[in-house]
Amino acid sequence: MPTSAERLAQSLQTLTALGDEAPRIFTQLYPDAAREAAQAADQRAARGLSLGPLDGKLVSVKDLLDVAGQVTTAGAAMRRSSAPAAQDAPVVQRLRAAGAVIVGKTNMTEFAFSGVGINPHFGTPGNAADVLRIPGGSSSGAGVSVGRGLVDIAIGSDTGGSVRIPAAFNGVTGFKPTQARVTRDGAFPLSHTLDALGPLARTVAECAAADSILAGDIPQPLPQRSLQGLRIGLPQGLPWTDCSEAVLSQTDNAVALLHAQGASIRKLPWQALMAAPSQLQSEGTLIAAEAAAIHQQALVYERDAFDPRVLSRMDKGRSLSAPYYIQLLLQRQQWMAKMDAAMQEVDLLLLPTIATTAPRIAPLLEDDSAFFAANALILRNTSIFNFYDLPAISLPLPRIAGSMPVGMMLVGARMQDRALLAMAAAAEQALANA
Amino acid sequence: MPTSAERLAQSLQTLTALGDEAPRIFTQLYPDAAREAAQAADQRAARGLSLGPLDGKLVSVKDLLDVAGQVTTAGAAMRRSSAPAAQDAPVVQRLRAAGAVIVGKTNMTEFAFSGVGINPHFGTPGNAADVLRIPGGSSSGAGVSVGRGLVDIAIGSDTGGSVRIPAAFNGVTGFKPTQARVTRDGAFPLSHTLDALGPLARTVAECAAADSILAGDIPQPLPQRSLQGLRIGLPQGLPWTDCSEAVLSQTDNAVALLHAQGASIRKLPWQALMAAPSQLQSEGTLIAAEAAAIHQQALVYERDAFDPRVLSRMDKGRSLSAPYYIQLLLQRQQWMAKMDAAMQEVDLLLLPTIATTAPRIAPLLEDDSAFFAANALILRNTSIFNFYDLPAISLPLPRIAGSMPVGMMLVGARMQDRALLAMAAAAEQALANA
Repeated sequence: MPTSAERLAQSLQTLTALGDEAPRIFTQLYPDAAREAAQAADQRAARGLSLGPLDGKLVSVKDLLDVAGQVTTAGAAMRRSSAPAAQDAPVVQRLRAAGAVIVGKTNMTEFAFSGVGINPHFGTPGNAADVLRIPGGSSSGAGVSVGRGLVDIAIGSDTGGSVRIPAAFNGVTGFKPTQARVTRDGAFPLSHTLDALGPLARTVAECAAADSILAGDIPQPLPQRSLQGLRIGLPQGLPWTDCSEAVLSQTDNAVALLHAQGASIRKLPWQALMAAPSQLQSEGTLIAAEAAAIHQQALVYERDAFDPRVLSRMDKGRSLSAPYYIQLLLQRQQWMAKMDAAMQEVDLLLLPTIATTAPRIAPLLEDDSAFFAANALILRNTSIFNFYDLPAISLPLPRIAGSMPVGMMLVGARMQDRALLAMAAAAEQALANA
Repeated sequence: MPTSAERLAQSLQTLTALGDEAPRIFTQLYPDAAREAAQAADQRAARGLSLGPLDGKLVSVKDLLDVAGQVTTAGAAMRRSSAPAAQDAPVVQRLRAAGAVIVGKTNMTEFAFSGVGINPHFGTPGNAADVLRIPGGSSSGAGVSVGRGLVDIAIGSDTGGSVRIPAAFNGVTGFKPTQARVTRDGAFPLSHTLDALGPLARTVAECAAADSILAGDIPQPLPQRSLQGLRIGLPQGLPWTDCSEAVLSQTDNAVALLHAQGASIRKLPWQALMAAPSQLQSEGTLIAAEAAAIHQQALVYERDAFDPRVLSRMDKGRSLSAPYYIQLLLQRQQWMAKMDAAMQEVDLLLLPTIATTAPRIAPLLEDDSAFFAANALILRNTSIFNFYDLPAISLPLPRIAGSMPVGMMLVGARMQDRALLAMAAAAEQALANA
């Protein structure tokens, strides 16, 4: 089994071989610090010591997290000249303390405000399964860095799906926790109400270990959970409309497989619950309003520095009224209570992470309306669970030759993140054995 | 010593004698339920039993608190025809469980949105010290009901000063707690961010007992606290400008008295801290934005039903943008942290509750601009501590013959409400002995 230092060297070599593609995945690389961390982990391992499940693992962090001495770009050209961060974000500190080898920072949509992953300033990393297709966003480089095997774990942020979408598009696993579990200090904000930090990795177990570290918990192995008798709900309505055939058929196959393993499957008539987040925000989103507040000055004085497709949506946020926004927050509280009550009926929800597989980059680069339509459809299912603040994970479905990756989303009850991860691990095993 | 039932009978008789003034103080009276509660308390007392310090006390509640079976008018004509409350607000339940005799509900400014206490729908109760002068608001009837001795304790709400202002104007004590200590369920909201529920009474001890009941705590006597060595800070700047001679001279006298009793008095150069709340909100207030959100429908469809002076300020809230409001909340968090740090330097702050004594009603009824100017000045000092969410109490200064009552505000550190109340009791005693 290769050492951490050997695996790091291999990753850095691969990145060199990737040429121009490499800086579209990683905005910053820290080869020296990473080598030292990898060697230290290897030395511990040689002595039979370990800092836990992340010791010596290769980890990337999204470029909205503060790393001491480095500029936090948040994917924005206007932040290239900002002051370097004085200290690591708490989650970065926790990763280092857990022995993680921080390889570098990954590219992202400007200010994390899109699910597509296109970035006009830092370039758009190609999808790990097909470089001509979008990586998904906003944690675009995070998804590609895991999808290409450059790191074991990528840390992303998820405000409307920005961890789960690149996970699904690149064929890996991505987990968004209940928001309050992971501190967002030192993370450049998009929406104070909805931002959450979470990991992408190749397995549920790695996501669970990383999540424990991010949350400041002591990592423990996930409890074994059987699929026998598991109550899985398929929330009907919006999440199943306008889905591609590939997504629907592969999701159906997964459902049938889980059913065959003893899970009870029930279609839930939750049309209103699924539609409420977009209906309530039809005149403008919480994200747009809060992003517009964060960038209030730049939206007046640095308009040219924005990605125009980010700018236009932030402008929409500027035009919203305070009472509209306040009502949105109040109504969200009421709908969250409804959803929490409804979640008592099931152990978890199952639905497609995204309605489609990753589209090609070129047409979306060329056409604004195609971009905005794709962005809305890509974010549609994932964003529902930011609105309800439920923990949610995207699992890669068994890959069909010649087809792009498809993700399946499992959703648990609020603050029951560990229970969700245990159920997800059982589902992952069933899919692997199929 | 008269029984609770005897005292209740006396109050009801006084109210009858007050004629038309009575319904301007109490919007609702519950004589039968109150008599039963008073008799039950008297029976307990005769057996040597007690439910605690509120057992058998006469209590009024502001007409924005739900009382089972009664309409919650919130001082608004448009709510006269609304459905009766299905159950008591939790704080009303707690008062009943503590043996309080709920005499009735007290009048208030429409939707609690003014510090003056004028109400065009339910009438304006005259000040307890001079019926031609304003009672202060928004808990107008609360202040008068205690000031006239009709009840022992009045429960009010304080979003910008609505407990402390009528307390100061009517010569009684009024306490606004740290917001989170008292649930606001079943209280018609003005501002979700700033609303707080608190008592008015004749003594600090009664306020402290009522506050414990409202907060769901077991009432305990306040710890004895000496003035010796107490670090009292006088925050310089805004609170001391445009004050009347009576207010300044009586406050100076009180400060000298506390100093003579051993308190150390320090002028604090906190001009920026004192000015920040109004400066940050110069283009519109949190209250206006949140009130406009609560009344979004009525502001379109029932405009004629509003007090025009409430309507115009809610309209101001409608015009604010979401990013402005969001920034206000973010900046408030930062300023709260600054204030919390600054409060470490002192045990409490001392300043005038209101810059003036109660003005006459007639000129303010007649002239909108006089009304708005008076309203702004009346709320100026108290509202600072809603913004910072610090506990604050208004104590009546020794009454000077021929002069209207003057209140002195003491302010403690966040969540240190009991410590503030203990210090206030020491100050109260010093003032009484003077």
